[in-house]
Amino acid sequence: MAKSLTTDSLQYFSFAEGTECLPLDCGRSLGPVTLAYETWGRLNADRSNAILVLHAFSGDSHVASHDQADLQANGPGWWETMVGQGKGIDTNKYFVICSNILGSCSGSTGPGSIHPETGQPYGLDFPMVTIADMVRAQKVLIDHLGISRLYAVTGGSVGGMQVLQWCVSYPEMVQAAIPLATTMRHSALCIAFNEVARQAIMTDPKWLQGKYPEDAPPELGLAVARMIGHITYLSDKAMHRKFGRRLQEREDLSFRFESDFQIESYLNYQGAKFVHRFDANSLLYITKAADYFDLNEEEDAAINRLENGPVKFLVISFTSDWLYPTYQSRELVQALKRNGCDVSFCEIQADCGHDAFLLPDQRLTTLISGFLDGVKKE
Amino acid sequence: MAKSLTTDSLQYFSFAEGTECLPLDCGRSLGPVTLAYETWGRLNADRSNAILVLHAFSGDSHVASHDQADLQANGPGWWETMVGQGKGIDTNKYFVICSNILGSCSGSTGPGSIHPETGQPYGLDFPMVTIADMVRAQKVLIDHLGISRLYAVTGGSVGGMQVLQWCVSYPEMVQAAIPLATTMRHSALCIAFNEVARQAIMTDPKWLQGKYPEDAPPELGLAVARMIGHITYLSDKAMHRKFGRRLQEREDLSFRFESDFQIESYLNYQGAKFVHRFDANSLLYITKAADYFDLNEEEDAAINRLENGPVKFLVISFTSDWLYPTYQSRELVQALKRNGCDVSFCEIQADCGHDAFLLPDQRLTTLISGFLDGVKKE
Repeated sequence: MAKSLTTDSLQYFSFAEGTECLPLDCGRSLGPVTLAYETWGRLNADRSNAILVLHAFSGDSHVASHDQADLQANGPGWWETMVGQGKGIDTNKYFVICSNILGSCSGSTGPGSIHPETGQPYGLDFPMVTIADMVRAQKVLIDHLGISRLYAVTGGSVGGMQVLQWCVSYPEMVQAAIPLATTMRHSALCIAFNEVARQAIMTDPKWLQGKYPEDAPPELGLAVARMIGHITYLSDKAMHRKFGRRLQEREDLSFRFESDFQIESYLNYQGAKFVHRFDANSLLYITKAADYFDLNEEEDAAINRLENGPVKFLVISFTSDWLYPTYQSRELVQALKRNGCDVSFCEIQADCGHDAFLLPDQRLTTLISGFLDGVKKE
Repeated sequence: MAKSLTTDSLQYFSFAEGTECLPLDCGRSLGPVTLAYETWGRLNADRSNAILVLHAFSGDSHVASHDQADLQANGPGWWETMVGQGKGIDTNKYFVICSNILGSCSGSTGPGSIHPETGQPYGLDFPMVTIADMVRAQKVLIDHLGISRLYAVTGGSVGGMQVLQWCVSYPEMVQAAIPLATTMRHSALCIAFNEVARQAIMTDPKWLQGKYPEDAPPELGLAVARMIGHITYLSDKAMHRKFGRRLQEREDLSFRFESDFQIESYLNYQGAKFVHRFDANSLLYITKAADYFDLNEEEDAAINRLENGPVKFLVISFTSDWLYPTYQSRELVQALKRNGCDVSFCEIQADCGHDAFLLPDQRLTTLISGFLDGVKKE
């Protein structure tokens, strides 16, 4: 592993061929495993400036565009405003890595991948994967890249769960961690929304117990699932400001079952659009992984394994996030402090809901870049 | 109309036969119209002690049981804890009326009723009805009962919208009004949840554009719609307390797409149960009526028609209700005060979400009974 690592658009790393399978929390194992990943910036000589960015539930490895041509061809990445030259996570300083998570559908192995034993897509034969399994796979990638310690791990929502899991699973490999808009324990409310989304998919007759053909997915169920998701990413206030009761391209109420209001059109549009970029079975697997996530189990709280650990934390929450409200970040901060961890916490005043962590915000940028600057280079 | 009115279980009142049709806001008219209703207590000699209770979206006329035999046969009513002899709305003092709303499916005319022109259920040929239309039909019933002025109108959620609509449409007929857990203007967030519920139904292939046979309804879509509803009736805190992350009849995670958690079982059970008592098309119509509800339209705010009106108001909200949060009740109170109305307001501290108005609560009982006692009998 002496090759020099620099900015690179989509690459694939495969491992766990044959008997060297990736062990999973469910007791099964998986192989071969492919992770799609991208990198930005340049890994320094002592390989100490790598930041692993972890994406949320429906994200992918495309955190930011690589250059002007990439931007035009593929559009902006999901954290374009935060990651890049001179930005909050400055790719002039840091070598940024993002891999598509296990179980997803944007290049990494997931339920839509081909099952080596059958030559058919896994479907529900894909093993249940957990956040810890996702992180276990990422660790193999980081090893492969010859990085023994990450300067930082960061991500929001399900990405934030992976941040915390990295700290618990491989504390010696993490210098600093920035979990955003997340929780150490998926709440009943979040499980409830996920379960309804899953039911919307699984009751679509085209789902076929997960065996749907690639060109005939359960698109209506998936669209409804996505609509539910979109509601939870916004806030009452943000919806009021963005849509209010404004009508969609009409002067008066239709008195029919059409989209009268802009909010209805918006949700229907988001639902229909999602079908073209996301796999229904991946939604089932990833939501289940989030639901299973609990670092604070009564019997054996994984968060306590961080006792006096070396990781430096910056926990960030947003006032109007009702999916992972601030009180859950406070619980995390308390648990970390109880374990003697070095932890800073910031609640950002923002009325745009859970989505806030993805939106341009100079306060967030300053906070993250300042924290990263201050991480002691050992 | 001189007959004496006393406690009576389910009755039907039909009107608007032939050309005497009920005019509707959509420009169409409807006839014949049947309203199923029940009454409790005894109408006094000067017919001045009648309280109209207005039910929420999926409610019916069965506010409370009529006697022990009724309780055993039909179970408790939806506001059993509030309405009855010696209760908050004391049927020893008041004559209580509740009618199933227009568009519903518990005895009143709705999309499942037979279209007189075709001999088939209306389905989507049923005209769109508004909250004002529902109230217009109720007014015919109240006239029929020989009551020229109601002592009070009360109800929560969509029932609360009807309360407000009564005050706007027929202020001279309402002495006092108690809207609970409601709004004068359906928010984008509420429209969003309703639209997803509608899409869950309308994308179910068994919906058949509303022409499903009675014995083969779109039950899977309706169940998903109900699950969404149930989430919105609870609160993060209530869900945490009631369910937390407790597993449902198992020791460990299943690592399968089963109900691992109690909250999942609860929602699936509520969804499946609802299918047996509610009609999918009625859900479409009633949610649309709620979405259309806006007494505070910019151009011509109906709430301003209450200027110096005779109605005495008690507005009640609940701290953890995120469907109709307290700030919306405050807006209502401000609008009423601006119009010189007599209005009291109470926000009740309750962590159980929107459902709070239906749950036993001595503070709520005392508040309502005290207010009713104080309504000046003219």
